[in-house]
Amino acid sequence: MPPVASPVRIQATDAADQPDRTPQLEDLYRNFERQLLVPLWTEIGDLMPPQPTSKALPHLWRWQDLLPAARQAGQLVPVGRGGERRAIALANPGLGGRPFATPTLWAAIQYLNPQEDAPVHRHTQNAFRFVVEGEGVWTVVNGDPVAMRRGDFLPQAGWNWHGHHNRSDTAMAWIDGLDIPFQHYTEATFFEFGPDEVESREAPERSRSERLWAHPGLRPLTHLKPAPATPLLAYRWEYTDHALSEQLALEAEGEPVTVEPGHAAVRYTNPTTGDDIMPTLRTEFHRLAPHTETAARKEVGSSVFQVFDGSAEVTVGDTTWTVERGDLFVVPSWQPLRLASEEGLDLFRFSDSPVFERLHLDRNHQEGTHA
Amino acid sequence: MPPVASPVRIQATDAADQPDRTPQLEDLYRNFERQLLVPLWTEIGDLMPPQPTSKALPHLWRWQDLLPAARQAGQLVPVGRGGERRAIALANPGLGGRPFATPTLWAAIQYLNPQEDAPVHRHTQNAFRFVVEGEGVWTVVNGDPVAMRRGDFLPQAGWNWHGHHNRSDTAMAWIDGLDIPFQHYTEATFFEFGPDEVESREAPERSRSERLWAHPGLRPLTHLKPAPATPLLAYRWEYTDHALSEQLALEAEGEPVTVEPGHAAVRYTNPTTGDDIMPTLRTEFHRLAPHTETAARKEVGSSVFQVFDGSAEVTVGDTTWTVERGDLFVVPSWQPLRLASEEGLDLFRFSDSPVFERLHLDRNHQEGTHA
Amino acid sequence: MPPVASPVRIQATDAADQPDRTPQLEDLYRNFERQLLVPLWTEIGDLMPPQPTSKALPHLWRWQDLLPAARQAGQLVPVGRGGERRAIALANPGLGGRPFATPTLWAAIQYLNPQEDAPVHRHTQNAFRFVVEGEGVWTVVNGDPVAMRRGDFLPQAGWNWHGHHNRSDTAMAWIDGLDIPFQHYTEATFFEFGPDEVESREAPERSRSERLWAHPGLRPLTHLKPAPATPLLAYRWEYTDHALSEQLALEAEGEPVTVEPGHAAVRYTNPTTGDDIMPTLRTEFHRLAPHTETAARKEVGSSVFQVFDGSAEVTVGDTTWTVERGDLFVVPSWQPLRLASEEGLDLFRFSDSPVFERLHLDRNHQEGTHA
Amino acid sequence: MPPVASPVRIQATDAADQPDRTPQLEDLYRNFERQLLVPLWTEIGDLMPPQPTSKALPHLWRWQDLLPAARQAGQLVPVGRGGERRAIALANPGLGGRPFATPTLWAAIQYLNPQEDAPVHRHTQNAFRFVVEGEGVWTVVNGDPVAMRRGDFLPQAGWNWHGHHNRSDTAMAWIDGLDIPFQHYTEATFFEFGPDEVESREAPERSRSERLWAHPGLRPLTHLKPAPATPLLAYRWEYTDHALSEQLALEAEGEPVTVEPGHAAVRYTNPTTGDDIMPTLRTEFHRLAPHTETAARKEVGSSVFQVFDGSAEVTVGDTTWTVERGDLFVVPSWQPLRLASEEGLDLFRFSDSPVFERLHLDRNHQEGTHA
Repeated sequence: MPPVASPVRIQATDAADQPDRTPQLEDLYRNFERQLLVPLWTEIGDLMPPQPTSKALPHLWRWQDLLPAARQAGQLVPVGRGGERRAIALANPGLGGRPFATPTLWAAIQYLNPQEDAPVHRHTQNAFRFVVEGEGVWTVVNGDPVAMRRGDFLPQAGWNWHGHHNRSDTAMAWIDGLDIPFQHYTEATFFEFGPDEVESREAPERSRSERLWAHPGLRPLTHLKPAPATPLLAYRWEYTDHALSEQLALEAEGEPVTVEPGHAAVRYTNPTTGDDIMPTLRTEFHRLAPHTETAARKEVGSSVFQVFDGSAEVTVGDTTWTVERGDLFVVPSWQPLRLASEEGLDLFRFSDSPVFERLHLDRNHQEGTHA
Repeated sequence: MPPVASPVRIQATDAADQPDRTPQLEDLYRNFERQLLVPLWTEIGDLMPPQPTSKALPHLWRWQDLLPAARQAGQLVPVGRGGERRAIALANPGLGGRPFATPTLWAAIQYLNPQEDAPVHRHTQNAFRFVVEGEGVWTVVNGDPVAMRRGDFLPQAGWNWHGHHNRSDTAMAWIDGLDIPFQHYTEATFFEFGPDEVESREAPERSRSERLWAHPGLRPLTHLKPAPATPLLAYRWEYTDHALSEQLALEAEGEPVTVEPGHAAVRYTNPTTGDDIMPTLRTEFHRLAPHTETAARKEVGSSVFQVFDGSAEVTVGDTTWTVERGDLFVVPSWQPLRLASEEGLDLFRFSDSPVFERLHLDRNHQEGTHA
Repeated sequence: MPPVASPVRIQATDAADQPDRTPQLEDLYRNFERQLLVPLWTEIGDLMPPQPTSKALPHLWRWQDLLPAARQAGQLVPVGRGGERRAIALANPGLGGRPFATPTLWAAIQYLNPQEDAPVHRHTQNAFRFVVEGEGVWTVVNGDPVAMRRGDFLPQAGWNWHGHHNRSDTAMAWIDGLDIPFQHYTEATFFEFGPDEVESREAPERSRSERLWAHPGLRPLTHLKPAPATPLLAYRWEYTDHALSEQLALEAEGEPVTVEPGHAAVRYTNPTTGDDIMPTLRTEFHRLAPHTETAARKEVGSSVFQVFDGSAEVTVGDTTWTVERGDLFVVPSWQPLRLASEEGLDLFRFSDSPVFERLHLDRNHQEGTHA
Repeated sequence: MPPVASPVRIQATDAADQPDRTPQLEDLYRNFERQLLVPLWTEIGDLMPPQPTSKALPHLWRWQDLLPAARQAGQLVPVGRGGERRAIALANPGLGGRPFATPTLWAAIQYLNPQEDAPVHRHTQNAFRFVVEGEGVWTVVNGDPVAMRRGDFLPQAGWNWHGHHNRSDTAMAWIDGLDIPFQHYTEATFFEFGPDEVESREAPERSRSERLWAHPGLRPLTHLKPAPATPLLAYRWEYTDHALSEQLALEAEGEPVTVEPGHAAVRYTNPTTGDDIMPTLRTEFHRLAPHTETAARKEVGSSVFQVFDGSAEVTVGDTTWTVERGDLFVVPSWQPLRLASEEGLDLFRFSDSPVFERLHLDRNHQEGTHA
């Protein structure tokens, strides 16, 4: 018997599909409440809808608003042990004020002043950084300094020590993506503090990780076991850009290598398995050639997108925005997304899709198909 | 810009690790709120604790209270289309009155009056039934009637049509376990109505599924692909009982086949893969010989237990109960569980462990070890 | 330069597709021979045929001939250290007198006199025993005595210690199947001697392995890792027989659970994976109802069959035999097999199919289909 | 009963472990021969040795001998339909004159005259080309022309259409590696003729395959399924060279990324799985820094090596050679290999290791360890 008042409240109503509203029923419901019991028949509409009805809402955050807010935080909020990071998270308007872009995904802008350090820690949350502008910061992962530059994607699998170090005289901002809400909800998170300063102040062009792993199809003989997350700590823009250009060029030569006409896309993968870079997070880069319109697609699970370059009209369910460089938007579960670009568009995406695929809960649908 | 008031509320405080509480900071926080932004530094304590701190609480529901409540519902609440099932769910006192035994697991007592039907539907939620007493109901799965009897475990993987049919003149109650809270939170659920009555009123001793699959190590040549969930629709008590007795007998002969002295246990598995019966749910049966005490163990993820027979003293974290036949209790994530039985104990368990294992988020710890 | 004469001999011929037979060509070929070189163009017909052209031939060995030969060996040939087993292997007439039923498979009749032991050893070769008649012998595997009786299938994965012990006053014969030719050709075999006598002279009804593992869909909590080979050391006839009867009964009720009308079949599987019992060997049991005729099927890889009961007309390629209890026959790679039984047929089969499936070299074809 | 004389011949001997040489035994053996039966006890020494005793012998073929022989064949032997390729295979002196470098591996020098075509065909055999010198040929795979240049590794998975086309005015030679002996022995081979001339005479710098796949860690969204063999048709020397240089540079910085001091190595992998490039073949590139000596290592399965640059003293079992550019040598199963280089060595290797790993028959041993 709980010592405090039971949080359960059950309403007898005259709604269809509900039992007759009698004093006996009221008694039964009060008994349920005392015993911490809830009937399925009053809750089924919320719990078991015909299809996912996301609490999260489609929403857009504009880079021109985000960056000044982060800059202001740079002036007022120090970075150090305890707060750990000057990161400001997107709070989906449907999720009650929590710092959750979607029920499963965290997306934040992080800001580091010139010569500033973010202290070393590790956590079970899977993370990555994506750089839409600037450079000068090195992420130091298990002692390996990794340069961050525009267009780079930097995965950061759970339980690796990491800190950030701004080597330059210019502040830098970037996007952090994590599975914080998922691990928070499922109660899986561990966290440990490391040193207050990064282990290495070196600033190499290429990290040791890249020197070991960034060779297409080649694997060091000392690292032959499949790793659950990618050992490659930076996916450089030059490679991503080149892969996308080649897809569009091949398409022009008649090869069926694009998602649809004018729509090139790559997935960032773990070279030890060919699978997603981390067990809970999928990351992709999409390029629309000028004058391209995509089909409307929906899938189980949620996504966050950031515009890297160009512009587009984005439609999520009933909402349409015009987006440009740096803008971030959220696509909730089972909401259709359609993109249309006149100028052309470079678009970074991350999602929780691996969670659903690994649990056999994935579904997707493309407008006009029966799949 | 959201049309209604932003749900975000940020508090500037004098707490350690927090920036100085200045008017500028207040302005910054108001700006954040307007923009639907939340800083990490005010939330990190909740979001990134050193180890999982479950919102769910250890709790016990007694069968002697549950069964009368269900019986009363049997008198007042009809079963039919819309409400679908006369199921009454355990509402963990830490989870705000929602019908969630843990953040991921649903556990309910379901009650069917004599000759009553529960209508046919299907849903993506993975489900099972476990029978602690009684018989007379057949679950009809895709047209295959499956008898339910004391000790039987009946898995019900997502997206299979199923209804229940009480053939007998006695009411019957049993336990339903599902991943409703997990799929609700992650927004993955689909649901469809089927016929109002079950497709078959036959009442065979053994379902077609068992006749095809319940042969140890033998697989029909027509069914050779690995299935994501078990095709075997009933795991009969006689087999479970026998397997546990043999483990204890083998232990007595000196074989290292028990979890620890006096503690036999089996996992229900998918014969097409040897893995858990469903992608999100683990189910096990444990038997303690008389005068057995287990080590304290904790793991990431939550469990629900039901006592099948015997009695024990159960300790979860700081809470201790004496449990007996039919009692249900919840072990939240990373809370240590210890069992001690004088009389001997038969105990059914289900958990969300496959979610964590498949996402490489699993951890466990046994008192007195370094693992 | 090899010290002895080169084994290479190359023929210049006037055949089509061959270069002009000139003195210069003869010089070139002699030069090749000295250098241990062989041209593709003289060998391609043998090496790269349009489809597998097996050196192995379809062949039948009759039990009424085999058993007396084994009995005679029982009188003349002792069993002991060095020779290890009184096993007499089928030598396919196409394979040059080697004791190979097919290029990859060994099949032998083994014979043990009353009260006789076959000494303990272990080897990397995967093995099994299948019992067409008799009983009284226990195979002792890593100290676990496993009874052998008519209809039982007893897998014996590589590198486990094992010996045999005839407890009875009657001689017993059974069939051994191994991957000896495959491991011999690929040069993978290791072998070690163990004790001259079996470790245990106990004669339990059920082995410890069965008591731990022969429970459908139930797995001991102490043994949760996938094992490369089955831990279940005996697949008893009563289960196999029952599974096959149920398939035919279900077929009669309209369920699509048979390979084709009147043809029931099970595969023996590893309960830890649902896969074949051993990495190189597939084993199955087929039952034809009376008056059943199968389609003609062929596949890459070879098989050995033993009639367990009943009789049939067997056609392999151009060869047809009438077979009865105990008869063994070989189906080479890509030779079509068709069975027709008036009386009904129970048929044990083993093959090398897992080798091809794991290396993506498997193909199969059924008469009248396009697959 | 076979129509011709039985190929079986069994010898009664006075050897230890053999039954007494009596007239009855001779009768038994004659009976066995007539019935196509062979006893285990006369054959066990050959079939079940304590460890693999390879029939294949260590052997060296010198490039300075091979290339002139191929050149001479270029003058005398046309390339065309039927003979298919001007390929000259290494015939291991232990394998009876067959064109088998080892029991499982084919290695040949292929030679194409200026402007010459090798016709299009496909086969189930997995193949690759490795170029030790020269350029000017394009391999056309399913219509995609792939340039061949010094240092390039070009995989060619089974059942893809392919031909070769020499665009240049210079002859070119390279090495072909295939699993012909393995598929020949196991009788798995299919073969089909294609057009007499290659489908495309284009000569692009980079194949379409490379443009789609040679981007580290990036995967086209249109190609997300794991493929059994690599879709990347060329692994260019510049990447291999760079990966090896970086390993040695990292080693000099104190990172544990080399096999042993001074010994860098990469494995060519399938980017869709991180696994070997083809199901039956492993390919690697090794670099020894000057003054490096390796440990002696042996493994189950056989290898062929080709020196790409530098020189070394190679010891295989009891045999030692000094090797230089282009030289090919064979290491049979379970024979220890040791390399010592003063000048430094670049070394290409291929082996049948995936066969053994996928069948759980792999073992290896390094001198001075217990593994």
